Amino acid sequence: MTITDRPQDTGWNQRYGDDADHRPSAPSDVVRLQLAHRSVRRFLPDAVSDDDLRTLVAAAQSAPTSSNLQPWSVVAVRDPERRRRLSTLAARQQFVADAPLLLVWIADLGRARRLAERSEQKLEAADYLETALIGFIDVALAAQNAVVAAESLGLGSCYVGAIRNNPEDVAAELGLPPHAIAAFGLAVGRPDPTEQAGVKPRLPQQAVLHHEQYDAELADAHLAAYDERLGAYNARWGLDGAWTDRVLTRLAGPESMAGRHRLREALERLGLPVR
Amino acid sequence: MTITDRPQDTGWNQRYGDDADHRPSAPSDVVRLQLAHRSVRRFLPDAVSDDDLRTLVAAAQSAPTSSNLQPWSVVAVRDPERRRRLSTLAARQQFVADAPLLLVWIADLGRARRLAERSEQKLEAADYLETALIGFIDVALAAQNAVVAAESLGLGSCYVGAIRNNPEDVAAELGLPPHAIAAFGLAVGRPDPTEQAGVKPRLPQQAVLHHEQYDAELADAHLAAYDERLGAYNARWGLDGAWTDRVLTRLAGPESMAGRHRLREALERLGLPVR
Repeated sequence: MTITDRPQDTGWNQRYGDDADHRPSAPSDVVRLQLAHRSVRRFLPDAVSDDDLRTLVAAAQSAPTSSNLQPWSVVAVRDPERRRRLSTLAARQQFVADAPLLLVWIADLGRARRLAERSEQKLEAADYLETALIGFIDVALAAQNAVVAAESLGLGSCYVGAIRNNPEDVAAELGLPPHAIAAFGLAVGRPDPTEQAGVKPRLPQQAVLHHEQYDAELADAHLAAYDERLGAYNARWGLDGAWTDRVLTRLAGPESMAGRHRLREALERLGLPVR
Repeated sequence: MTITDRPQDTGWNQRYGDDADHRPSAPSDVVRLQLAHRSVRRFLPDAVSDDDLRTLVAAAQSAPTSSNLQPWSVVAVRDPERRRRLSTLAARQQFVADAPLLLVWIADLGRARRLAERSEQKLEAADYLETALIGFIDVALAAQNAVVAAESLGLGSCYVGAIRNNPEDVAAELGLPPHAIAAFGLAVGRPDPTEQAGVKPRLPQQAVLHHEQYDAELADAHLAAYDERLGAYNARWGLDGAWTDRVLTRLAGPESMAGRHRLREALERLGLPVR
């Protein structure tokens, strides 16, 4: 068994094991590309061209957005020194410094706030958690379109949630205006073909897909099999532990959150109150 | 000028007007599909097959997820009576009742909570806003993969943010366990070709894409041109107002939020505290 992509199985077996019962009969090329997704953390030194960057942003802007609010922005960071500083703020992950392009996706209520100030109108909905959440959801929809677009262009990527470890410092580094916060980063570049990495198995569909109503007992009955499958996958990469262990460790408490237990405070300081 | 898709311009002109300077030279087929995205709110009566549903969920599960937590679930609603009741809860939008398939995407910390209870371990990180936010972000990444996959299969869709207007009632309707909340709906079906709808213009790239640091003045200089362009687009569909007016009306205050100013309280009631 190899750990590289096998296009003939369209990524299905790597994602779901040998669950042939639920395998779609005729996935599109787009779905094949999505099934074969993996995080890329080692990049060739080639720059990402302006042309490719514009393509990623066009894909991102083509994603749906609530009431056409478009409450997000993106900062393209190519300067190696700035990438290095952002990497330091984001759990010192080396791939953040090494990627030729770091896109920092911003939940941005600042644009609407500035419009309201200019026309001297109130914008009180922007004080509520719901509106900040729209910013985070819409920037996630946009960024995921960019991820899929990047893969269609032969680029690879990896999200950087750790950009939320130090929201105020990241905002200062990027010169963010008030009412804006970095939601996550996205390292982008041409994949180094020598990187050892695989397509990660996911929970069986039966564990996440419910029909008509949520059935916790039926869904959770599939977790043990996944624990076994992910444990075996992890072992191939020299990693300990199955899925349950890793989830419980990651969510144990504030000490396992790398500073992100402060998010609510950071949002308020950056001008995104969460009434 | 027609309002239908013109494949030869890959959606670029409809998205960005005649801004040829920033147009990518060689978009992929995937990017062409993304650029041509539009919301579909009128569907043919054809059912979405189980095969297509499995494909959408496989695409969704192939999206990245923070630390492989997979903190989401999805409820597939096909029962017309349940769709009708959910439509009533979601601002009485008729397309929610009419779509053959309604996917309700759930930010779901319940699965991890149940694992922790079974193994008698603490899961205190789940009490923080950051962790709920991971649920919302990750379910958005997943759902957007499903949206693109659906379009690649000839299906259309429209998100239903209004599913957050009445979170507790939606949770009861779907039998959600504690620590889970409906993030948004997604109406899915085969597009009715008689629907009058277009590809919505978005902000110029220069208004949302920053280089190295955020430059509000440079970005906001492009808003007036967009207001004009969106005003003209809206007028073609018999809608009043340009972009700025609509944003300011939508975000005026709690009275413009259709109940969603209560989101924080609803999260706490549903077992997703936001410390």
